[in-house]
Amino acid sequence: MRSLPAFLLAILSVSVSAADYRSEQLVQAAQLRDSVVPGAAHAIVESLTTEVGPRMAGTEADMRAVNWARAKFAALGFDEVRIEPVKFPLWTRGREHAEVIAPYPQPLHITALGGSIGTGEQPLQAEVVMFDTLADLQAAADGSLSGKIAFINGRMERFRDGRGYGPAVAQRGNGASEAAKKGALAVVIRSVGTDLDRFPHTGQMRYAEGVTRIPAAALSVPDANLLQHMIQRGQPVTLALDIGAELRGEGLSYNVIGDIRGRSKPEEVVVIGGHLDSWDLGTGAIDDGAGVGITMAAGAAILAHAQRPLRTVRVIAWANEEQGLHGANTYAAAHAKEITQHILGAESDFGAGRVYALRAGVSTEYQSRFAQIAEVLAPLGIPYEPTGGGAGPDVGPLVVRGMPWAQLAQDGTDYFDTHHTANDVLERIDSAALDQQVAAYAVLAWMAADAPSDFGRVPPPVVAK
Amino acid sequence: MRSLPAFLLAILSVSVSAADYRSEQLVQAAQLRDSVVPGAAHAIVESLTTEVGPRMAGTEADMRAVNWARAKFAALGFDEVRIEPVKFPLWTRGREHAEVIAPYPQPLHITALGGSIGTGEQPLQAEVVMFDTLADLQAAADGSLSGKIAFINGRMERFRDGRGYGPAVAQRGNGASEAAKKGALAVVIRSVGTDLDRFPHTGQMRYAEGVTRIPAAALSVPDANLLQHMIQRGQPVTLALDIGAELRGEGLSYNVIGDIRGRSKPEEVVVIGGHLDSWDLGTGAIDDGAGVGITMAAGAAILAHAQRPLRTVRVIAWANEEQGLHGANTYAAAHAKEITQHILGAESDFGAGRVYALRAGVSTEYQSRFAQIAEVLAPLGIPYEPTGGGAGPDVGPLVVRGMPWAQLAQDGTDYFDTHHTANDVLERIDSAALDQQVAAYAVLAWMAADAPSDFGRVPPPVVAK
Repeated sequence: MRSLPAFLLAILSVSVSAADYRSEQLVQAAQLRDSVVPGAAHAIVESLTTEVGPRMAGTEADMRAVNWARAKFAALGFDEVRIEPVKFPLWTRGREHAEVIAPYPQPLHITALGGSIGTGEQPLQAEVVMFDTLADLQAAADGSLSGKIAFINGRMERFRDGRGYGPAVAQRGNGASEAAKKGALAVVIRSVGTDLDRFPHTGQMRYAEGVTRIPAAALSVPDANLLQHMIQRGQPVTLALDIGAELRGEGLSYNVIGDIRGRSKPEEVVVIGGHLDSWDLGTGAIDDGAGVGITMAAGAAILAHAQRPLRTVRVIAWANEEQGLHGANTYAAAHAKEITQHILGAESDFGAGRVYALRAGVSTEYQSRFAQIAEVLAPLGIPYEPTGGGAGPDVGPLVVRGMPWAQLAQDGTDYFDTHHTANDVLERIDSAALDQQVAAYAVLAWMAADAPSDFGRVPPPVVAK
Repeated sequence: MRSLPAFLLAILSVSVSAADYRSEQLVQAAQLRDSVVPGAAHAIVESLTTEVGPRMAGTEADMRAVNWARAKFAALGFDEVRIEPVKFPLWTRGREHAEVIAPYPQPLHITALGGSIGTGEQPLQAEVVMFDTLADLQAAADGSLSGKIAFINGRMERFRDGRGYGPAVAQRGNGASEAAKKGALAVVIRSVGTDLDRFPHTGQMRYAEGVTRIPAAALSVPDANLLQHMIQRGQPVTLALDIGAELRGEGLSYNVIGDIRGRSKPEEVVVIGGHLDSWDLGTGAIDDGAGVGITMAAGAAILAHAQRPLRTVRVIAWANEEQGLHGANTYAAAHAKEITQHILGAESDFGAGRVYALRAGVSTEYQSRFAQIAEVLAPLGIPYEPTGGGAGPDVGPLVVRGMPWAQLAQDGTDYFDTHHTANDVLERIDSAALDQQVAAYAVLAWMAADAPSDFGRVPPPVVAK
């Protein structure tokens, strides 16, 4: 470019600023996009769900998952594979059974919520009081639930972006303590899910400080309907609840980290990943075997690519996301000194649906780069959307500390049909949809790691899962 | 019609033989068709599934179902309601659990097959040997399964008329004895179902005479895939199986019968119905709450109609269909002397999908009547198909004894997705589809009971479910 004509210079100065990508980078990224091996991510998820299966944090199976992830990173040729310990309160599920005692005896399908205590030696037996929403329960008079089981029957709405989850999940997270404040002995909730199948959805709950701890369980959606229909008949409905869950001691797991070393700035890092733990009911295919498989396979594609990026691409199989981002918080604390070297992060933790948009949490000056990344993603049907979206849960603690984020927004229309249920199994996953995501993550990670500069820092956002 | 012109007589002699329906009967039947109260059948199924729920034959809940049916027939205004005792071998389920011990430990979702024995005090633990089909197992060398658990992995195909069930169900019915002949300690089968959900499908099995009895269970389809994927990796796979089922003593239930007395030939009977019992896993909405609801509601429509038919319409809520047509066989034996007075029978036992065809098992001379019935059914989208089809399971024992049958063929495309699973719940049912069927059954039963003569007798057919 020693004697470029003035009109060409003018064109280039419009389309490519000094902070943007050069055309050969776009060409290389497109080659990477097209190099993804069909079925690679599906094979990883199949391996994890078959050889390990359910892997709730702190269980023996979780430790097998850690070993599986180390071995898989190594087999895929990552430059460096290591584990970092993560500690958290240990929760165990135990037995769980519910049945209507009167006036219409029949069993109900329930599952204890993560973090819940049990019902003790004897099943708890009490009349059920139904509330359409958590707000209705909160509006009940103090003491009005004394000796009763509260039933919160709030419904979740279906959306492509899963935005029905936030409003619905409050009854899972806070229902127990809100019910206990009114005197309830236990709480059962309508599952936070969009399906009509007889699988209860588990998920984490929290006890508020200073409030009596009571057992908490979810009914499948058909069982919630059934209980509702019984209660609407007008007679008192008595439920027996037998939950063996307990929270005792400390659990240990590990973040498993695979690095692809950058060719000239290896200390600067782009983080992608999914979480390695799952709930114990299903085999954790969509939550989050998919995220692990997609990002490991994206790493493998980058490793196989002709050109290493400038910076390191780090794939993290995060520990214990489900019970409160324990792996992510531990990582952010342990890497506090290098946090500014984490230049961009993205997590795949929204199932196996196709990506429909690229979004980013960066200041305005870096947005043109994402428009360029989206040029490469265009054949995958992924446009850049300059607003909206949010960081994945496990990159949240880094984002809170100023790390810019990107989001490859997945179609989550069906995600909450089987989320946190026994039905989260390999059959929920379309291998071709994973391929599209592998290509997208590979391009995003490679281009971010090969960017002409970092992406600055961002102000702390509100992080939601 | 004292001086009808010759040309009119000629026309009538072509279109209406002495054995066919008069035009005013068609008009009345059309009025009946259009009089069905929307939601009537759904309300009956909702009542049964909510107030009784699972009602496996011989259980306390089954007895509540009998009382429910008596009360419902009475509330609907049937002229006579009675029960007739039915005895059968009593089967209880008990505990059921399976898990892979090595090399990939994880739980599998199973359910014991009806009629199976248990595994005894201790879980049974053995290597699994997989067969793609029952025929492959039958081709194995004698003794080759000694000390092993046989896994029969045959798949069921999806069809509107459910014809994939027959070929697939042999592994459920006969798998245990065929495996035992080769020395197996137990058998697990891929569920006989068309879904990809993590619900095992139960259903009846039979032990062959003179063959060692071994426990038999079904894996959900995803669990069968999982076990297959493990076995295909090449290492021996060890399974632990813990089944508490037992067959002990005698069970008692009742056929519940509601009669709508015919206006001039009450001793001649048209039989419609569904079966009252269900498996114990779901609430028995599609199998066969739907059939009970449809035919009870059809009876209610006939009761509300201006004109009673000539003959009696008998709605039977059959006892213990699931474990071997016990109610139907008992009825046929108990009513042996009046069997020729049962002029036509039909059963609704294929879920809640819309009816797409009318078929009949009658000799040729009566086929024109069914073409006339189909004229009345035409607005419901139900043509007459002069060939094919078969009697419903519970009318089978009467058909074997010469009773003509009719079939309102239902769309069963989705039926085997949730058949015999915990997911057989009210949510599977579309109320409007039931309305169509109520209208069809009401028209069929009324016209059959008001026919100018009976439908003759038929030679014994092959009866299949």
